Amino acid sequence: MNTERRRDGARQGAEAPASPAPERTSDCLFCKLYREGDHVAATDGFVVIRDINPQAPVHLLVIPEHHVDSFREISEFSADEDKRMLDFIAEVAAREGLTDYRVVVNVGPSAGQTVFHLHWHIKGGWA
Amino acid sequence: MNTERRRDGARQGAEAPASPAPERTSDCLFCKLYREGDHVAATDGFVVIRDINPQAPVHLLVIPEHHVDSFREISEFSADEDKRMLDFIAEVAAREGLTDYRVVVNVGPSAGQTVFHLHWHIKGGWA
Repeated sequence: MNTERRRDGARQGAEAPASPAPERTSDCLFCKLYREGDHVAATDGFVVIRDINPQAPVHLLVIPEHHVDSFREISEFSADEDKRMLDFIAEVAAREGLTDYRVVVNVGPSAGQTVFHLHWHIKGGWA
Repeated sequence: MNTERRRDGARQGAEAPASPAPERTSDCLFCKLYREGDHVAATDGFVVIRDINPQAPVHLLVIPEHHVDSFREISEFSADEDKRMLDFIAEVAAREGLTDYRVVVNVGPSAGQTVFHLHWHIKGGWA
């Protein structure tokens, strides 16, 4: 196997968050929407809302209760949270009648992240 | 699962079939690339390759060893696999020097999925 395996742990854990970080819970828009938004669907620890500026015929946002600013901090989620989150994303897409769809996470302002609370886009409904 | 599986052995040994669902392991392009591809990075159960048709200055694909046709079948992954997969995606992006990036899964042909083995796109490097 010609695989070059990179094991350089030197950079791990050295990153500081680069993006604007609102105070969690009190000032965070998605922490607020988790508590009192217009939810399309919900399960323990996760809610779904429609994107107010849809970029596809169906454009949903899956928002975890657990606040992290972005996907960069995904390791703060437990294995159980990760499994329930990913399974829920696929389940919500299926419930919406989507067979083909795109799952997207924008990480940081240059990638289009505008709310600094990790969330997953589900986009579909083209056909 | 609405995937139609192809059982036509006539194509075995020919070029990797492009659609819609090759048999796992023997005919699946990404099962093959998992075993013998040009890996940018690897960890137990996951490898990273560069997209041969990049849509961003940095365009990586994270490929799990565990074959499922698409994200629709994500519930077949264990909690441990999910956690290691998501943590690895963030780790690989950081190692590549990306702070802002996009994580994308295309689900089904209408969403741009061309290889029917679940994989995650990491796109970045614009700035």
